[in-house]
Amino acid sequence: MAYVNENYLKLPGSYLFANIARKVNAFKQEHPDADIIRLGIGDVTLPLVPAVIEAIHRATDEMAKAETFRGYSPEQGYDFLIEKIIRHDYNSRGIELSKDEVFISDGAKSDTANMQEIFGPDNVVAVTDPVYPVYVDSNAMAGRLGDYDSKTGKWTNLVYLPCTAENNFIPALPDKKVDMIYLCYPNNPTGTTLTKEQLKEWVDYARENKAVILFDAAYEAYITQPEIPHSIYEIEGAKEVAIEFRSFSKNAGFTGTRCAYTVVPKSVKGYTKSGEAVELNALWNRRHSTKFNGVAYIVQRGAEAVYSEEGQRQIREVIAYYMENARIIREGLASSGLKVFGGVNSPYIWLKTPEGYDSWQFFDKLLNNAHVVGTPGVGFGPSGEGYFRLTAFGSRENTVKAIERIKSVRF
Amino acid sequence: MAYVNENYLKLPGSYLFANIARKVNAFKQEHPDADIIRLGIGDVTLPLVPAVIEAIHRATDEMAKAETFRGYSPEQGYDFLIEKIIRHDYNSRGIELSKDEVFISDGAKSDTANMQEIFGPDNVVAVTDPVYPVYVDSNAMAGRLGDYDSKTGKWTNLVYLPCTAENNFIPALPDKKVDMIYLCYPNNPTGTTLTKEQLKEWVDYARENKAVILFDAAYEAYITQPEIPHSIYEIEGAKEVAIEFRSFSKNAGFTGTRCAYTVVPKSVKGYTKSGEAVELNALWNRRHSTKFNGVAYIVQRGAEAVYSEEGQRQIREVIAYYMENARIIREGLASSGLKVFGGVNSPYIWLKTPEGYDSWQFFDKLLNNAHVVGTPGVGFGPSGEGYFRLTAFGSRENTVKAIERIKSVRF
Repeated sequence: MAYVNENYLKLPGSYLFANIARKVNAFKQEHPDADIIRLGIGDVTLPLVPAVIEAIHRATDEMAKAETFRGYSPEQGYDFLIEKIIRHDYNSRGIELSKDEVFISDGAKSDTANMQEIFGPDNVVAVTDPVYPVYVDSNAMAGRLGDYDSKTGKWTNLVYLPCTAENNFIPALPDKKVDMIYLCYPNNPTGTTLTKEQLKEWVDYARENKAVILFDAAYEAYITQPEIPHSIYEIEGAKEVAIEFRSFSKNAGFTGTRCAYTVVPKSVKGYTKSGEAVELNALWNRRHSTKFNGVAYIVQRGAEAVYSEEGQRQIREVIAYYMENARIIREGLASSGLKVFGGVNSPYIWLKTPEGYDSWQFFDKLLNNAHVVGTPGVGFGPSGEGYFRLTAFGSRENTVKAIERIKSVRF
Repeated sequence: MAYVNENYLKLPGSYLFANIARKVNAFKQEHPDADIIRLGIGDVTLPLVPAVIEAIHRATDEMAKAETFRGYSPEQGYDFLIEKIIRHDYNSRGIELSKDEVFISDGAKSDTANMQEIFGPDNVVAVTDPVYPVYVDSNAMAGRLGDYDSKTGKWTNLVYLPCTAENNFIPALPDKKVDMIYLCYPNNPTGTTLTKEQLKEWVDYARENKAVILFDAAYEAYITQPEIPHSIYEIEGAKEVAIEFRSFSKNAGFTGTRCAYTVVPKSVKGYTKSGEAVELNALWNRRHSTKFNGVAYIVQRGAEAVYSEEGQRQIREVIAYYMENARIIREGLASSGLKVFGGVNSPYIWLKTPEGYDSWQFFDKLLNNAHVVGTPGVGFGPSGEGYFRLTAFGSRENTVKAIERIKSVRF
């Protein structure tokens, strides 16, 4: 009899975006003429930049001729892309990496979800709260989190590190020993960041406790303040304890084109039960080459073009466009008396719902009175209750209109 | 302390292709002028067909404009592709599927490796031997296979179903009860097939034992004999017990472009320890949407073009080219007295090494005396010892030349 992985049966339904869709549809039926503006979803809207488009066209033409056709990519990705990543994203910040420490993949979602597979089942996992749900769900599927308690919205064996206005969104070191720590900075969903000093506390903690930090830097390109670290490897000692996830989704609009990369320095170790140190790089390489078959050549060429001079200029313009949206949202909401966070080094604006509104009540109010759709903070974890996420990925026109409307709502 | 998944440490090194490369390089150093022909690797060499190229160019242009830009794909894939798959690959053979039973992915390798995640750890796994190593390694990583015995080349808890000339490459039903059965037909590496009647025995076995068949049909497009089933769902009852993997890699040259799909009918069930039936479709959907983020839009448009009238005509020509190579290899080797299998409904030719040669000795002989590189059968499992794989994916010229050379070798 084929038994199922019963950990899957413990997962709560992923109702967040389904609930949003249901509420929006109901509203539409009642108000068919309402001009609904969606600032809820973390998906980009501006097209791929010309340098990327040209590179994909060129690579596609190569695929049309036997002499230049490419079959299987190396599972780890082509050197032409890995070399540019290392030079541009790391060497420029004083970080040295070897080519076999960088793994090209189809997405930071896949990598952050799959990385836990190389770890044993007994590790204690810690996540900031609120959090990107993939870190939690992938560990729950692997049986690392115990049981889900629908009353608290928490897994029994998961360590939650609350990040709220009260602690200025800076997670405190856990009082219980943890082994795998997911950190995402600039943060999704709160849009907040950590300074080098704050991040160093975590690196030191991991070194002392032989823990591993899974650092998601998918929003790195949105950092505007020079003192904020772009890579965890800017922190001394991080190469001993941290794996870093990066993506072309948000810096170059690749959400529908799929390319990302993950850095696993050879100096990062895990341990056997008998205490022997094991290079995680070797385990991830084995996982990546057994359960994955490389990214499309044409897509890797597109990603490479992001690093060309024109590519860099073009994506900077796109990011600046979104960040101007972020400014409009942030300042607009603040001027109407709402408490806002993020939006300075991030396309996400996290706001405290006004007195008397929980996340979903605020959602309803905004939908009904401003015809604006955002994301209830509680959808990202218990500490997201009483918060709400707006994103800067809309069009300028819609963003301006949405904020004007929100400003006219009386809470 | 972060513990590693110690199952990874039990994996034997994947030395097959590394060993081949080492031997070829050593030979090259001694014979720098030798014209080495590689008929060893299962990678295609002909370019993407014009219909696919045009579709990718068109889709790329869509990605260049805000009005037609696409962000995140549905994780399960776009309906435009799923609908064509169902109509063309299934309805045409009398098989009905609903759209949410088909999952687009980046490769059959990923899917065949990942699918075991939705199953419990205690299932007994069976594979045909020789076998595509991914089925074995992915289950070993999940801890389902016990320990690897380097003397026998076998995992202690894995059930091997020998497929050799002695049983005409038809796997016998296991004498021990098994729960997850990997079948690949047309087979990699042997190139052999099963008739509907032979496949029905497995479907009946699975129904009787509540087992699940993981059916890899990646080479389906190479079937030339009308009586050979293209899909396991042509067998009565298979929709209750079988998951089917398909790919655009081998039928349309997508090894470097990455698109595949997996069919998980809602009627296929797994079981909890307490005996409750669970739809595997729901579990896979959860896995696919949590740990994967969809295939690139431009690639899905390319795959869609495979189903256009021109696309079909063009890929048929490519397949016919490879299959003519297969015929040349098969008949050429047979005429020189070698026993050959496969190559009729498959791009793989599996040959019995002559008396006195094991797989690696034959490899050395072929490299030294014919300057031809193939793949030693033992690399695919213990029952592959004494066999050797050649593939039809080379150029016509090289294929002809290689066979002429092999015919002149005295074994």
